[in-house]
Amino acid sequence: MQNNTGLYVHKYGGTSVGSIERIQAVAKRVADAYHQRQRLVIVVSAMAGETDRLLHLAREIQPQPRRRELDLMLATGEQVTAALVAMALENHGISACGLTGAQVSIVTNSEYGKARIRHIDPDRIHALLDQGCVVVVAGFQGIDSDGNITTLGRGGSDTSAVALAAALGAEECRIYTDVDGVYTTDPRVVGNARLIPRLTFEEMLELASMGSKVLQHRSVECASKYNVCLRVLSSFHEGSGTLIGGEEINMETAVISGIAFNKDEAQLTIIGVPDRPGVAYRILAAVADANIEVDMIVQNIAHDGTTDLTFTVHRNDYDYALEILHNSAQQTGARHVFGDREITKVSVVGVGMRSHAGVASCMFSALADEGINIRMISTSEIKISVVIDEKYMELAVRTLHSAFHLEDDRSG
Amino acid sequence: MQNNTGLYVHKYGGTSVGSIERIQAVAKRVADAYHQRQRLVIVVSAMAGETDRLLHLAREIQPQPRRRELDLMLATGEQVTAALVAMALENHGISACGLTGAQVSIVTNSEYGKARIRHIDPDRIHALLDQGCVVVVAGFQGIDSDGNITTLGRGGSDTSAVALAAALGAEECRIYTDVDGVYTTDPRVVGNARLIPRLTFEEMLELASMGSKVLQHRSVECASKYNVCLRVLSSFHEGSGTLIGGEEINMETAVISGIAFNKDEAQLTIIGVPDRPGVAYRILAAVADANIEVDMIVQNIAHDGTTDLTFTVHRNDYDYALEILHNSAQQTGARHVFGDREITKVSVVGVGMRSHAGVASCMFSALADEGINIRMISTSEIKISVVIDEKYMELAVRTLHSAFHLEDDRSG
Repeated sequence: MQNNTGLYVHKYGGTSVGSIERIQAVAKRVADAYHQRQRLVIVVSAMAGETDRLLHLAREIQPQPRRRELDLMLATGEQVTAALVAMALENHGISACGLTGAQVSIVTNSEYGKARIRHIDPDRIHALLDQGCVVVVAGFQGIDSDGNITTLGRGGSDTSAVALAAALGAEECRIYTDVDGVYTTDPRVVGNARLIPRLTFEEMLELASMGSKVLQHRSVECASKYNVCLRVLSSFHEGSGTLIGGEEINMETAVISGIAFNKDEAQLTIIGVPDRPGVAYRILAAVADANIEVDMIVQNIAHDGTTDLTFTVHRNDYDYALEILHNSAQQTGARHVFGDREITKVSVVGVGMRSHAGVASCMFSALADEGINIRMISTSEIKISVVIDEKYMELAVRTLHSAFHLEDDRSG
Repeated sequence: MQNNTGLYVHKYGGTSVGSIERIQAVAKRVADAYHQRQRLVIVVSAMAGETDRLLHLAREIQPQPRRRELDLMLATGEQVTAALVAMALENHGISACGLTGAQVSIVTNSEYGKARIRHIDPDRIHALLDQGCVVVVAGFQGIDSDGNITTLGRGGSDTSAVALAAALGAEECRIYTDVDGVYTTDPRVVGNARLIPRLTFEEMLELASMGSKVLQHRSVECASKYNVCLRVLSSFHEGSGTLIGGEEINMETAVISGIAFNKDEAQLTIIGVPDRPGVAYRILAAVADANIEVDMIVQNIAHDGTTDLTFTVHRNDYDYALEILHNSAQQTGARHVFGDREITKVSVVGVGMRSHAGVASCMFSALADEGINIRMISTSEIKISVVIDEKYMELAVRTLHSAFHLEDDRSG
């Protein structure tokens, strides 16, 4: 991929363009960057509240609106913002050009509501940049090969920005948001949580899939795949935010980069499943067929010819999943099914743990010292997750944040 | 042009789609037509108020918004309606497909805000109709040859509908609106004004350019050029409305079809202009250069080597036009300039008057009988217009309506 030094993609979310005043603040920020001789592609979301307004209109007509027409409708929110931001840039004497996803040839598949980008033709954008224009692109949207308007689903504007940065070979993709960057954990839970200046894609993926909902999984995956430098920073304050990816992080990186947690999960367990090949598959397939996403899955070694299987789902899906599991139990001859919605998943994440033994033991002992019982454990290369009682969530996060010395140096 | 029997274009304006309930009523009407085996292309405007909302947003950023970006923004209003109407049709079990102007290849020039349609590629619409779909097209918009979104200006959705009807060879283009059709004059002025069942394009043009603002000039011109049968009818009540164009109207047509009037005009006169070639041109060119539209122009035979010139402009342009005229008087050596904003233009319109002498004398004597002084007279093939004092407007319209026996037969 050709790297275009000085070419930046900025993405501004719904809150950052939520009012005329904020749009003018965005324009001021973009104008400053432009006058520092940056070549700029700006990706924008719909103004905060606009997508909900449109959804509400659609649902008044069809409780389950047809996805093709809904996409046709929802795509207008970003189109309006793109026009407004371009106008606001003109006020700074900058020639700006607002464009829809279709107009910059963001070609997707035809999965309305959650389309995947297939390719982007960067020619028009390059031509406009060469003329000295700032290009303002409506995020969240594309066009399929038949010319139908599609939307990319939740966090779609982040994905638009990253995909454009990849297609254009941008120096950096900057996601401007309402937080200053990625923190070691949620500052609302741990007062001295620290802004993390650098993260690897893998760390960000592990953090993104949990409570730190700064970036959607998908945009991080896309950035990782095309090696796009991603920076998360505030659209309201100055600061350099968190840089994700980029050059290799040096050896002295922290062992643990952050503590993530997720309160929205519920746990389901099926006991005494006959230990035959394909049983776990059949149980989980029934859940997946119901369009329920499964997060953690734990199965221990079988004994007595049976095994137990535990998994977590979104709390909203708990009742439905439990019903499905009861059916599966009957079909497979499993002994018993139960679950709990009052659980929390807490994870320590860090690429440094690969080469450091002892992270798990440090984690478990810190929790045990506080009398917090661990119900489930699951590990990956750079993450250790435990499921605990929900009531211990804050205590567990604070304990682990302190056990791994993640405090803000300034306050320490 | 191939004529596709059974293919109808319907156009629904902003009031007709102004709420979810009205959109559902439109869907009901379209569904009824569909079940009568009509092939249907539906052209929709933005929901009433939406265009103003968007304009207001834009003007908060730029008092004179840049036209290209404004078009990008304004086009979303119709796009949303197209999606909603398509959804509402799905509720009737009808497969419907909402499309933007760009998606149906309504290619225009690049005059943002008042673009002219260059051509339409009907292939996609024909293909969808062949699949049994109702095609719902966002009106008022197109795309230029560089792929920029354009809007067609005031009354643009009517123009979209007529142009689509022409390109598709539709049997009829139905403009659904908030009036029942075209009346012999404004029913608010003359209580027993009568709905006109048939009109020629020329008559409609003469009526449209005056008070009867049912259809914009431009859409009638387009219908006339491509010989598209145009029907104006109510989206709220049943009724066959007014058919414009179509087969030749029979010989027994009425002499006069209606009385039009326009209260928005003002009159300007320049006296004692040296009677030299090019003088009238120079005076009017100065007005036109200021982007002021001139309606009636009257110049009488010169005597004493000078002539007098009178013309009318929109009342909002009166002061500016007067100033320009004073300058022209100095340059041309004209004697005197004056004007009046309290005037009204009243016209009798009818293709029948071509072959009937005596229309003018009937008109003038009826006005004289009521003591109404005529200030200016101007005639065309199918129209006689007079300018009178504004205070006589209602009296003049009622007098003429009665003099030409235009009353509703039911009430007479």
